[in-house]
Amino acid sequence: MNKLIVFQSDFGLVDGAVSAMHGVANVVDDTLKIFDLTHDIPQYSIWDASYRLYQTTEYWPEGTVFVSVVDPGVGSSRLSVVARTVNNHYIVTPDNGTLTHLKKYVGLKEVREIDESKHRREDTEYSYTFHGRDVYANTGAKLASETISFEQVGRQVPLEDVQELEVGEVVRTEETVKGTIDILDVRFGSLWTNIPRDAFVETGFKHGDSVEVMIRNGNKMAYNNRIVYGRSFADVYPSEQVIYVNSVYNMAIAINQGNFARAYNIGTGRHWEVEFRKIK
Amino acid sequence: MNKLIVFQSDFGLVDGAVSAMHGVANVVDDTLKIFDLTHDIPQYSIWDASYRLYQTTEYWPEGTVFVSVVDPGVGSSRLSVVARTVNNHYIVTPDNGTLTHLKKYVGLKEVREIDESKHRREDTEYSYTFHGRDVYANTGAKLASETISFEQVGRQVPLEDVQELEVGEVVRTEETVKGTIDILDVRFGSLWTNIPRDAFVETGFKHGDSVEVMIRNGNKMAYNNRIVYGRSFADVYPSEQVIYVNSVYNMAIAINQGNFARAYNIGTGRHWEVEFRKIK
Amino acid sequence: MNKLIVFQSDFGLVDGAVSAMHGVANVVDDTLKIFDLTHDIPQYSIWDASYRLYQTTEYWPEGTVFVSVVDPGVGSSRLSVVARTVNNHYIVTPDNGTLTHLKKYVGLKEVREIDESKHRREDTEYSYTFHGRDVYANTGAKLASETISFEQVGRQVPLEDVQELEVGEVVRTEETVKGTIDILDVRFGSLWTNIPRDAFVETGFKHGDSVEVMIRNGNKMAYNNRIVYGRSFADVYPSEQVIYVNSVYNMAIAINQGNFARAYNIGTGRHWEVEFRKIK
Repeated sequence: MNKLIVFQSDFGLVDGAVSAMHGVANVVDDTLKIFDLTHDIPQYSIWDASYRLYQTTEYWPEGTVFVSVVDPGVGSSRLSVVARTVNNHYIVTPDNGTLTHLKKYVGLKEVREIDESKHRREDTEYSYTFHGRDVYANTGAKLASETISFEQVGRQVPLEDVQELEVGEVVRTEETVKGTIDILDVRFGSLWTNIPRDAFVETGFKHGDSVEVMIRNGNKMAYNNRIVYGRSFADVYPSEQVIYVNSVYNMAIAINQGNFARAYNIGTGRHWEVEFRKIK
Repeated sequence: MNKLIVFQSDFGLVDGAVSAMHGVANVVDDTLKIFDLTHDIPQYSIWDASYRLYQTTEYWPEGTVFVSVVDPGVGSSRLSVVARTVNNHYIVTPDNGTLTHLKKYVGLKEVREIDESKHRREDTEYSYTFHGRDVYANTGAKLASETISFEQVGRQVPLEDVQELEVGEVVRTEETVKGTIDILDVRFGSLWTNIPRDAFVETGFKHGDSVEVMIRNGNKMAYNNRIVYGRSFADVYPSEQVIYVNSVYNMAIAINQGNFARAYNIGTGRHWEVEFRKIK
Repeated sequence: MNKLIVFQSDFGLVDGAVSAMHGVANVVDDTLKIFDLTHDIPQYSIWDASYRLYQTTEYWPEGTVFVSVVDPGVGSSRLSVVARTVNNHYIVTPDNGTLTHLKKYVGLKEVREIDESKHRREDTEYSYTFHGRDVYANTGAKLASETISFEQVGRQVPLEDVQELEVGEVVRTEETVKGTIDILDVRFGSLWTNIPRDAFVETGFKHGDSVEVMIRNGNKMAYNNRIVYGRSFADVYPSEQVIYVNSVYNMAIAINQGNFARAYNIGTGRHWEVEFRKIK
């Protein structure tokens, strides 16, 4: 282990919750190197938590421990687990779907249930609402500091039992490739689809092509126009639209120095479909 | 000392003020372990600063130095002090009420006035508006790095002279327990009262009980309904209301996966009274 | 080098972009001491990025490496550079004007172009939109960790070729001193002008003086009234206006415990002129 521990939650940074987790980690081992992924996951959005882990973990060294606490079911019977990915990142989290993207697109090697009788902070028996501090931060810090081994976390959980949210399908034909809008590049309003660059390129699109784009919200057409496929924003004028490969190698749509999502009221989720079609 | 230093302010994170404080601390000793509690204390809200320290310090190791700068009186005659709590946490702060909750609910062991002739950064004689950087960050870093001892901070201040804000009373009868709404769990809209779990339990409430709740804003009734006392959110359906014990062991009120404060326009402060009453 | 690296961007903290940069730096050297200046630079605002560096770098130890990524021209022909200031701070950034204030008010000693053939992360050839992660974080971490020397960054860039944004002039007469509003102290709504304390004092203003203040937005008068020149906010009543010396020793205007910018709809930029005039 490299003593790196990275926290994520939907707690925000306006009160003391995140700092309490940092403190607990420092009590376990004050030589840990503590980072934050984000604490601005939309409240209760397990999907976003899952996606942000998928977007981020691969850039961190092997052995890094991630603690992700988006936990609408705190106090319920959902399991508390630590997952080890095929790249040897560890994720400490409630098993409520937060592992969806890592399981599907990266791969999990082994998952263990946190034995709360051993890894819950002492004297917390009257507090049932802050497992982030009392269970997850504490267990993550013990693991990152090698106070415990991965095996000592608790019993193994069969990989097929790990909870998954449904993800959108990618469908390719001769003339089109279709998918869904997974998430936004929030601050810039770019749409991040679930369509991999490879599927897009195999459909036959090339840099400089003008592509017909249809975005549907359920049955309703939300957008339909032609957009150029650029190498980057610099291939189009400011305020011009562009299709590009985002930083996780999926297809994305933006307005250069504008905000596509806000311009057309585009949202995210499996009912937000995007289709790229060749122009004849 | 453990070289841990934790910053709090109402500066926000949108400009360079917090980073200037981090820089000053690194100039004193670049092996300090620097953290942030929050910098989103509402502007000038000494009350919130005091509460967030109370909510957080106990989860940090002994010897941790907290630097809290919410300082509407910067440049006035208010003292600059370092307080040592009974748990050996150090708080570097203007003495303007920021120590209220720690003094009342945790306990202060000793308070010293910062000798600015010794601990103010050099060459800052024309800047009277950023004591956070020039006095508090600098003194906190010198203390956390053991460049100076606690005694070298400056002269002792009698504990009874430490400024305190007024806090709400908790009143218990046979049938009721009454208090005030201290603060919100901001992102989730839960109401955190000043009523300790012990006072609530001693009044006779048990998990699963339906409790009559009255919330008054001064003379005006803001809310009056029955809410179940649950062990955690998972005891009620999403969108259902619940009374629970929060992470500092006081009574709190929430809507599971909703926002109680926003739903009923509830605020915080001593004029926001909450009463729990037994149903016969 | 002291292993300190400080990140700044317009990415916000709501998704995984900043954490990916932190991860890349840790892959290079997990003993780096990683900080954030701010990630809330307004989108694409090179001016703000330049100003925040100017406001902050001097408080950090010599040898600190700053990575600033506000990059509307990502993928264009703008250079990627590392600048060394006369105070031996290093700034890793696109050369798009981000170095304006440091070049003008602090001084650059030497600038080098990043040789992307050597310092770009491997296997990032399909991603053209995240140079912050793939080029800047990686190069900054290599420099801060002494994996490479400053000379190994790449070829020298003539200082006169370094891009600069236009900055407002300061004009002094017998009776007045005029300048522009550079930026806001965002959270408190104070106006930070480009007028140095020295120019103001040399015009003859003294603490306690009542000063005529005119603020123009182009041709339009936005504000015209008398304000006292105070040593700090504590020299005036709450809700009273005050002229003061800000933390970078320029003249600033505030409402004590209020928000001047919001009260009078004041903005920033070279077309926002401010004039201080003696009252006879």
